[in-house]
Formats: sequence, structure tokens, C-alpha cells
Amino acid sequence: MDRQEFSNPVDLKQIQVTDSFWHREQELVRTEVIPYQWEALNDRVEGAAPSYCMRNFKVAGRMMREKKSKGASYVAPSYTFRGFEALPEDPAHPDEDKFYGFVFQDTDFSKWIEAVGYSLLQHPDPALEQTADEAIAIVCEAQLENGYLDTYYIINGMDRAFTNLRDHHELYCLGHLVEGAVAYYQATGKDKLLKAAMRFADYCCEYFGPGEGQCKGYPGHEIAEMALVRLYQVTGEEKYLKLSRFFLDQRGQQPFYFEEEEKERAAHDGKPCHLTTNNAYHQAHKPVREQSEAFGHAVRAVYLYSGMADVARLCQDEDMAAACDRLWDNVTREKMYVTGGIGATHMGEAFSFNYDLPNDTAYSETCAAIGLVFWARRMLQLKPCRKYGDVMELALYNTVLAGMALDGKSFFYVNPLEVLPQACHEDARKAHVKSVRQKWFGCACCPPNIARLLSSVGSYAYTESADTLWMHLYMGSVLTKQVGEKTLDLKVEALMPWEGRVKVQLHGEHVPCRLAFRIPGWSSKAKVSCRCGGRLLQIAVELNELTVRNASEEEHLEQGMPGQRETVAYREGYLYIDGIWQDGDEILLDMEMPVRILTADPKVREDVGKAAVTRGPVVYCLEEADNGKDLHLCRLNLPSLKPEEIQTEMTEELGHPMAVLQVPGKRLVPTESRELYRPYQPQQEREITLRMVPYYAWNNRGEGEMSVWVRT
Amino acid sequence: MDRQEFSNPVDLKQIQVTDSFWHREQELVRTEVIPYQWEALNDRVEGAAPSYCMRNFKVAGRMMREKKSKGASYVAPSYTFRGFEALPEDPAHPDEDKFYGFVFQDTDFSKWIEAVGYSLLQHPDPALEQTADEAIAIVCEAQLENGYLDTYYIINGMDRAFTNLRDHHELYCLGHLVEGAVAYYQATGKDKLLKAAMRFADYCCEYFGPGEGQCKGYPGHEIAEMALVRLYQVTGEEKYLKLSRFFLDQRGQQPFYFEEEEKERAAHDGKPCHLTTNNAYHQAHKPVREQSEAFGHAVRAVYLYSGMADVARLCQDEDMAAACDRLWDNVTREKMYVTGGIGATHMGEAFSFNYDLPNDTAYSETCAAIGLVFWARRMLQLKPCRKYGDVMELALYNTVLAGMALDGKSFFYVNPLEVLPQACHEDARKAHVKSVRQKWFGCACCPPNIARLLSSVGSYAYTESADTLWMHLYMGSVLTKQVGEKTLDLKVEALMPWEGRVKVQLHGEHVPCRLAFRIPGWSSKAKVSCRCGGRLLQIAVELNELTVRNASEEEHLEQGMPGQRETVAYREGYLYIDGIWQDGDEILLDMEMPVRILTADPKVREDVGKAAVTRGPVVYCLEEADNGKDLHLCRLNLPSLKPEEIQTEMTEELGHPMAVLQVPGKRLVPTESRELYRPYQPQQEREITLRMVPYYAWNNRGEGEMSVWVRT
Repeated sequence: MDRQEFSNPVDLKQIQVTDSFWHREQELVRTEVIPYQWEALNDRVEGAAPSYCMRNFKVAGRMMREKKSKGASYVAPSYTFRGFEALPEDPAHPDEDKFYGFVFQDTDFSKWIEAVGYSLLQHPDPALEQTADEAIAIVCEAQLENGYLDTYYIINGMDRAFTNLRDHHELYCLGHLVEGAVAYYQATGKDKLLKAAMRFADYCCEYFGPGEGQCKGYPGHEIAEMALVRLYQVTGEEKYLKLSRFFLDQRGQQPFYFEEEEKERAAHDGKPCHLTTNNAYHQAHKPVREQSEAFGHAVRAVYLYSGMADVARLCQDEDMAAACDRLWDNVTREKMYVTGGIGATHMGEAFSFNYDLPNDTAYSETCAAIGLVFWARRMLQLKPCRKYGDVMELALYNTVLAGMALDGKSFFYVNPLEVLPQACHEDARKAHVKSVRQKWFGCACCPPNIARLLSSVGSYAYTESADTLWMHLYMGSVLTKQVGEKTLDLKVEALMPWEGRVKVQLHGEHVPCRLAFRIPGWSSKAKVSCRCGGRLLQIAVELNELTVRNASEEEHLEQGMPGQRETVAYREGYLYIDGIWQDGDEILLDMEMPVRILTADPKVREDVGKAAVTRGPVVYCLEEADNGKDLHLCRLNLPSLKPEEIQTEMTEELGHPMAVLQVPGKRLVPTESRELYRPYQPQQEREITLRMVPYYAWNNRGEGEMSVWVRT
Repeated sequence: MDRQEFSNPVDLKQIQVTDSFWHREQELVRTEVIPYQWEALNDRVEGAAPSYCMRNFKVAGRMMREKKSKGASYVAPSYTFRGFEALPEDPAHPDEDKFYGFVFQDTDFSKWIEAVGYSLLQHPDPALEQTADEAIAIVCEAQLENGYLDTYYIINGMDRAFTNLRDHHELYCLGHLVEGAVAYYQATGKDKLLKAAMRFADYCCEYFGPGEGQCKGYPGHEIAEMALVRLYQVTGEEKYLKLSRFFLDQRGQQPFYFEEEEKERAAHDGKPCHLTTNNAYHQAHKPVREQSEAFGHAVRAVYLYSGMADVARLCQDEDMAAACDRLWDNVTREKMYVTGGIGATHMGEAFSFNYDLPNDTAYSETCAAIGLVFWARRMLQLKPCRKYGDVMELALYNTVLAGMALDGKSFFYVNPLEVLPQACHEDARKAHVKSVRQKWFGCACCPPNIARLLSSVGSYAYTESADTLWMHLYMGSVLTKQVGEKTLDLKVEALMPWEGRVKVQLHGEHVPCRLAFRIPGWSSKAKVSCRCGGRLLQIAVELNELTVRNASEEEHLEQGMPGQRETVAYREGYLYIDGIWQDGDEILLDMEMPVRILTADPKVREDVGKAAVTRGPVVYCLEEADNGKDLHLCRLNLPSLKPEEIQTEMTEELGHPMAVLQVPGKRLVPTESRELYRPYQPQQEREITLRMVPYYAWNNRGEGEMSVWVRT
């Protein structure tokens, strides 16, 4: 493994996102999502199912105080299972001593505080910070003396804590708590929540491990793996990295932990055990280093793979890295929608078999696309390679953004690629597919997940090593790169995802730094003009061929000239420019962004005879609002259509500037026949112009049909 | 309503089916299905889930005897609900006093005895008849003194009988019992079971009705409606017709009975009532005469519509008849697969919305196609019209026959139009779609339903009124038509479904009779040569135009010549020939049977850009066994392909003669690209010959892909 290429995300404190596209999204998170979320987790949203999240922390805290006031240690009641989601019998009068909501309800807070942390970095807000501090105080009051912190068991009975790792999400709660605590600490410097998270993690470090008497289990819903790595990186405490690695090493070992645990639970309850564990659903069917195909719950899977990539990097674990890469190729070449969505089936919110990517019953959960972004960034940290960056960008600009309405007020959990509203309403097989975004969800994972990703998007755009700065995504921003004692300031201007031109202005005092630029797969021709010191380099990457010309001296440069450090290199889709930078230096990238008409591998049954239209990283779709009902009657004018005939037009009609497309097409003209089945006749068609809008912007004009794939 | 056209099925005693195609099917039923079924309902099939059916009757009978021996009337235990399907805790030792199986398990016997009855008519079998008599004795012993006969409540507790008409199927058990008893009585003349069925029906006639104190409910699962009509027709007892009509009249009236019943049950149990009734699922959302769209459980729906058609005919109820016709058009023009299958969704085994006819997740239950045949025959009895006959034939030759393997040993419950075995195994959304036929089902409705239909198929081929005999289906048979005091003997020879030529030889002594022949929709040109007395008529029906020539006198005849009864007429797809028939008379039909390439109404989204290939009533499909894997890569060579280029070849390779097709087609050649999504290129295809086999014969050569619809 080439440790040289390992990188870390640039500290968010060093980045200010100024990009109009992303600034708008971040402002929606700050002004809409975070405040709404706070109301939601305090059960103050009219018409929405209560979260019970903060209430549970308060109940647990009160129980603790009462015990302490009596001078006794806290002793929890004896545990009784009341359902994966416990609801009060009388919603108007929830029981004062009971836990309500999903077993993982604590994470509603953790995701919120994480988004708050990132948001405060971008936009200081003393009132929000005070609210957050108060919430943290409530949360910390619920923590047991020994460090344990999951209100589900604290309230319901600690005698059964850690006896159902498979389903009861305690380690998932730990993971989110750590993520939230680290983000808030990094933003504010306040360590109250970080210390609480460390205490819970310390407790887990004692409870789980290879030693005698330690539990050999691992999370049923992964996230702790990557969270513990982050905790290690911020605290320097190696035990957290060790615990993460322990979880990964244990996963999939035989006898299968979840089965053993299930047998023990049955024995404890004095009931016969009919094993229900589906190990593959939890990615626990074989040791992680031996896995090659993605199975089971999609979000869990990509969270696991993210943790694996982290550990592979930090531990230089080549087998783990190889498994990550095999899984990556499987997911992105055999199980991913053209929108970057993953998890094709709602049954278990899971991956289906290879190439099974139905459009109308798609699950493609927003959180799974977010997890794919997490994983992609970690793969890039491990090995900068365009295939990761391309998918990260694709998932981000399409499925992740589609998860939120353009006004930030409603959300998709499921992201179909084809919608017929009638089917969503009348066909129970598509009950999971919503034809309009929803205000909030009982299982509120997607909206807060969008919030924490969008408010930290800068840390996905850039990663760095000691001497290199990688630009994976292009967004207007101001950032600082420390190289040894020296500081390089960069100002990036971009118009993504609508234009491929990027300007990078550099400021510094002879700062030696390698700058790396991702040349996206969607651009077959990129021209780069680089002014460094007195020299002007004209660089071109065309069909993955690099040419470099020293325009200042009319000298052709070869890659890797003998005896000197290479100045310009092109490797795995990244353009590397080594330079010693100073004020006035500037790099201009001009990446061609043609409209592209894509077809799927014919193994994807649902897409045979269809095409998708994209431009840059943006995938387009037909909407009823532009093209009328019965979108399935429309087709692209292929094979005669040339991408050049497709017109691109910037419009603000949906509230912010975006490029829409005018595509020559045809529409089937219905015949007169009243027979359901009639003798074949060549189709009667009329010429039409199809109007296509970015997929992320669909369903912002009321309910209607939508389709990404169009017949050819 | 034109009472003239009303007809009844010809008594099975008057028909002997000699047709090689149908005789084979009937022999399978006689030699495979009926014996297997008997073993199954006595729980003697190794590896199959026990039916518990005969065991339940024995348990109930023993309970009755024990009570009687104590001189007391039978008093059932107090009812406790033990699930819609009750299974013993220890399967090796079922409790001696408990009911097991589905609430409707009694019907396993009733369907069996019905098939036995029909089979005995075609093929006397003293040993089988003795077994049947013994079974009947066991069943009759279970009947209560008051006539009630449903072991579910007899064993579980009569205090709750008729308190859950919606779900507990007592009137469904009544209906099947009546159907079975009538068939056995008509076959053997033995009336022991008929009397038991009448006593149960009598009990219901007292229990249900418009009078004060009588129950105003109706069946949750329809069938009693048509069964009671049959009981009325065989006994002449008008009260049975009245009860059938009462059930129809009550259905859908407000307040909704099932909701009232549900409230009462909740009140009885002292629980709060959260209504769960979906009236449309039970076709009880509005009065039946006002219904226009088919909703809910497909089998229940077509059983209901069958009863409606019966009552419309017998009571000359025009509004009821109009509703039947509206529903018919809805089902066959908006909700039917090209194979005659209905009920597109497995969610509730139900109709989906109009034009929602997915091929790969199709439900298309065998029983629903059988019910469609029942209904079609009754529509024909009401009004002979080709549209009913065409659909009856279509459902019969395709979905009904596909329900059973060619060796009669395994069955499909679900009849998809497209199968990828991997999806059936790995995609839980298609768990209902089996890639191979199953031995038997816990809910064993389809195999016995196939058995009772196939063994009585003659009564679907012919119906009669006093002076007319209609031939709806063409099958080799010998039958007798009584016209007043005279007898007309007919010998029919046919080679359906492979040839459109039919020969009818007549024997009699100047018997005046109108013969009616269905000219199928699949034949645009039919020539008929009719020798009647000394006269030879040459008749042609081409594109629904009738021409008649008196070949014996070279005289052109007009339809309906003034002053004389019309000799030849063509009406609603039926050719009517009036004649006075004698020995030596003969009618030869020659209906052209070209290969037809069909497309669906473009409103059927799943079939846009696809075609189905049919010949006569037979729908063809591609199978992996003939065409390799990845059938979705194949397409028909359209628009250039002419149906004449498709070659028909008779083969016996699947065990009996059938026509297979050789169709010029193309196959997509996969490209080298490893990208899941790649720039559009016109498709590379190679010429192939597609081999297509009849849909009913699919999956008789092991597991593999199958597809009815082929890309064009």
C-alpha cells in the first residue's frame, strides 16, 4: 500500500464553503432542517408522530437523580420487551416511567448535534449553541455512573443490556453519539459531550474484546466501526481503534455471534429457539476480509465498509483494503442505480442480487446514498482514484439531494427512478414508494443524515496528506493548507454542477505543495492552465491521455522527466501538479461537460431498450409537469439523436438556477382499439420535445409521474 | 332480456369427451390428482404439510357420538380463536380434541368429492366410488342435528358460529359442500351427501334472510351464491335461489355488515374496535348492481360475478345482468393478462388498478382463471356472445392448464408471465412466484379446483336451451341433445387447440334443432360446410361478414329472408344454423388459425415495446430450455417480421403432441464494457430463431427462465 497517498479530510475549520449551490443547501439545513429537527425531537411538531427522544433522556435522567437523592446507586427495573417501537397506550398521556419510540431513538439527538456542530463552524449562532449545550446537559444526566448511555436499556432495565446486539442498536447508538460528540467538540471546543461519549466508549472497550470474560459480539447495525476510528483520531487513544478493529475482526466468525446470542436469549426466557438470524442481512455471513459481494441492509453495509476502509488505512491492512475494493466494484458495477442510489429492495431495505435494479419499486434509501458518500471518501483517503470520486459526486448530486425538497421542508426516504402516483396509492407492492416528499418519519434517519452530510460537505470535497491537497469535488470555497510551517491559501471558484470551469487562486510565500485534481469520468476532455511562479503550463487530459506544454518557454514537458521530481502527472483519474506556490498563482480547469446519453449493462433487465440522460454529474428525468401523463409513451429519438442536439438552458423557475434539457423525442399515439390485446401494428408516433430536469429537483411542483430511464 | 337465448350446460351424463387433448387431461385428474388428493386430505403424503381435513371430520363425528351416547345433545366447547390456520404444537401428536388447518379446511373434501363425481361420470370406478361413500359417511357423522356442518366451529365452539362471516368462511364451506354434493348426486344418484348439504342449506335459509331476527350478513368469500343456484336447479326448491339472491342483495348495503360484525365481535370480547374491514376487498363496497370495477380478492370476485350471472338469468334481473356485463368488460379489457390470468397482485391475491399488469410479479392465481371460466360460462348462459367464449377458451387453454404439470403431479398457484429463477429465490418481493411447480399447498385450493374443472370440461363446451345447442369450445365428444320428444346425437371431432377444423356428424330422425357455433376471435376467416337433409350450405364468416350459398341448388341465401324462419344467422360471434337433422347430416367447420402477434394497449406500461405470440387460443412463451439464459436480450424481428414467416411444427417431445413455433428474432450481443452505465451505442444484435412453446406447457423441463412478452 502506498502510504504516500493516504489522506485525511481537511479540517472543516480550514474551509469556508462559498459556493452558491452548496451555500444554499447548507443554509436550508441551518434555517429549516436543524430547527425543525429540534422541535421534532422534543415532540413539538403538530401532526407528526412524536420522537420521544429528548423525553427519554429526561426520563432516564430523572430516574438517575431520584436514585442518587436516596443515596443509592441507580438500579434499573427488570427488563421487559415492549416492541421494536414502543408507543404509549394513550398517546395523550405517555407513562412517566417508560421508554417510547424505536430502540435507537437516542440517535435522533446524536444526528442533530452532529449537524449543529458542522453548521456552527460555517455559521456561528450563539442561540443555537446555547440550545445545544442545554440538550447536552440533559443527555449527560442520563448517563450511568459506569459510562453506559442508551436510554432504551437505562429505562427498560439494564439486566438485559447487550443481550441483543443484533437488533437493539446499542452500539449503533454509541457510534452516533461519538460522531455527534466529535463534531460538536471540533466546532466549539466544548468537551462535555465528547467526554460522555468517551466514557461510553471506554465502557464498551472493557465490555467487548478478545480477553477472557469479554463479550465477543459486534454491532447489529454498523457505524461504531467508523465512529471509533474518528474518536481515536481526535483523542489519540489507541484503544478506540482497537475496539473498532475488534468489531471488524469478529464479524462473520463462526460460531455466528448473533445465533449464539439468539440461543442464549431463548434459554434465558425458557423458550425453544427457532433461529431467525439472517447473517448476510447483517454482513456477518463470513469474515469481512473474505467478503466480495454486498448483501443485506444497504445502510449497514456501507457503514461497515466505511469502517473497514478507515481501519485498512490506519492499520495498513492490505487484506481489508482489498476486500473494500472488491466490495466497491460489486456495489458500483452490479448493484447501483444510475443515480448513485443503492439498496434495490424495500424487503429489509437491502441489496438485491446483482443487476436487479428495478426502477419503479426501487428502495434506494437516501441514507444508503449518504453512506455510499461516506464510504467513497474513505476509499479516496485510502487510494485516490477517480472511480471513488465519480461515485461520490454522483450519489451526492442526485440521490442525496433528491432526499430533500428544494425548500428543505420535506424528505424522501425512498428514491425511485420511476413513479406513477396511482401505483403508490393503490398498489400495496409500492406502498414504500411515496409520490411526494414527507414532512418527517417515525424512523427519522434520512433527514438528519442529509443535514449532517450537507453541513460538512467541505470535508468530502478535499482531503490532504502532509504535502498534497486533493480536490475531489469542485465547489466555491476558501481554504487553508498547512505544509510544514508554511500556509497555502486557496480560493476556489466553481459553477458546478452546471459548468466544468474551475478557478483556483493561490496565496502563499513559496509554499511547496502538490495539488491533485479529479478529472471526472463525465468529461472526456479537460484543459488546465496553470500559472506557477513565472511559469505557465498548458495541460490537457483527453481520453485519459496527458499532454503538458510549458507555454512560458514553449517547451513540451514529459511526465516524470529524469532527475527531477515530476511536475505534472496523471494517475487514476487525478491530475497532480507539483509546485512552489506564491501570490498570484492560479490554476484554471476547463472540463468539458457534454450531455451524455447512457445505457445500462444489458444484464440490467429493467433498463434494456432504455437510456438515461446526464450532464456532468447530474442525472436528468422526465416529469409529468413538463411532459404530461403517461411518460412511458415517450421515447428518445434514438439511434438518430446526437447528444449535441440536446439543448441546455439555465432556468430559475424551480427557485434556484439549474440547467434543464430540451431533448428531441417521440411519443406513441394511442390507437382507437378498445381491445386490451390487438394485432401488432408498427407504432404511430409523433415528434415531441422532451423537457428533462435534474433528478434531484423532481417532485417540487406537486405530485406527478417521473421517469429517469426513457425508452429508445 | 332475450330469454330465448338463455341456456344451461348440457348434463354431463349426455356428453362423453373423446378428444385426445382433453381426455389426457381428464385421465391425469383421474389417475394422478384424485388419488393424490385423497392421500393428502388424509394426511398421508410424505413431506407435505398435513391437511387435517378428514381428521377434523372424524374428530367432530366422535365428539357428536360421545355426546349422543350420553343421551345428551351435542354441546360444543366454548370458542377460542386459535388462528386462521391452527397447527398442533407438537406435529407428531396433534391434540385429539382440536381442529387443525385453515378455517376452511372442510372444503378440501368438498372439492375432492366434486371432482370424483365428474370423474365417475366419464369413467366408472367402483373402488373410487366406495372410497367416496365411506368419506361421505365420515362427513355426515359430523353434521349437527340442526343441519349445521362446518367442523371448525363444531369442534372449536358453536357459541361463535356465524360471528365472523368476513373471515371465517362458513358460507364458503357451505358453497363447496353443495357443489360437491350435487356433482356426486348427479354422477351416482346417491343422495346422502346431497341431503346433508340441503340440511346445512336449510339451516342457513332459516338463519339468514330479510325477516325479523334473521341475520343480514353475506359470505366473506363468495361461492355460496352460485352453489345455491345449482342446488335450486337440482332440487327445485326455490328457497335456495331466494337465499342466493338475498346474499347478493345484501352485499354492499349500508351500514356495511362486516363492519357491524367487527364492532360486535370487539364488544363481545370487551376490546376497543379499530375497524380493519376493507369492504372492496370483499366486493362489498357498494351494492352489486351498482358495481362497475372489479376490486379485491380475484377469486372471490369472479365467484361472486358467477353467482350474479346465475341470478340475473334465473330472475331475469336486468340491472344485475348489466352489472355483470360492465364488470366483465372491466376485467377483460383492463385487468386481464394475455394468458387469461387475472388478479395482478399477490397483496391480498387481488386485482390491481386498471392496466397494472406486471409480468414478473404477477399473481394470476390458477383458481382465479378457473373462476373466470365459471363466470364466462354463466355469461354465455345469459347471453351467447363471442367475447365470453373467447375469454373462457383463453383462460382454460393457458392459465388453467399451466396450473398443472404435464404429468399431473405438481401445480402452480401463481402463474407469472415472466420468470427469472434467481429472482424467485433471492428477491423477497417475488417470494410468491415459484420457479417450479409445487407438490401440494397448505392452502390447497388450486389443485382440486383444476381437478373439478377439467373433469367437467364438457359442461363448458356446450350449453343448451329447449331448441338450441351452443358449441362454445370445440372438443372431440359424443353427445345427445333432447328436443321435445326427439333425440339428436352428435359426434364431434376436433384437433383443438392445434387445428381449426371441426367435424360434427349428426344422427336422428328429423330432429329440428338450432345449432350454434362460436367463431373465435382468433380466426378472421371461417368456412363452414353444412349438409342438412338433401341440402348443402356453404357458409363463410370473414371479418365478421356472413355469406351463405346453397351449393346444392347454387342459390345465394340471405340472412332472415321474409316469411320464413332464418336458416343461417350470425350474431355476436356465433353462427346459428337451423335445421331438421337426420342420419348422415354433417357440418364441417374450418376456422383459419394463423399465428398472431399481439401487442397490449399502451396503457399497460409493462408491455410497451413488447409483443406476445399466439396461435388459436394458445399463448406462446420463450423458455430458457430452448433459447438459453437472458431471455430479455431476445426480441422479435419486428416490424419486418410477418406472422407467415413463423413456422409451426407439431412435436411430442414434451410427452404429448403440441405445436411449437420457430420465430425469426434477434439477440442483443453484450459489449465488452465493464461499466454498469456506458455511453449509448446502437445495439449490436445477431439473428437467431426463437423457439416458442405453449404457455401451458412451460416449466416441464426443469427450472429456467420464461417469458411470454418479447421485445419488438
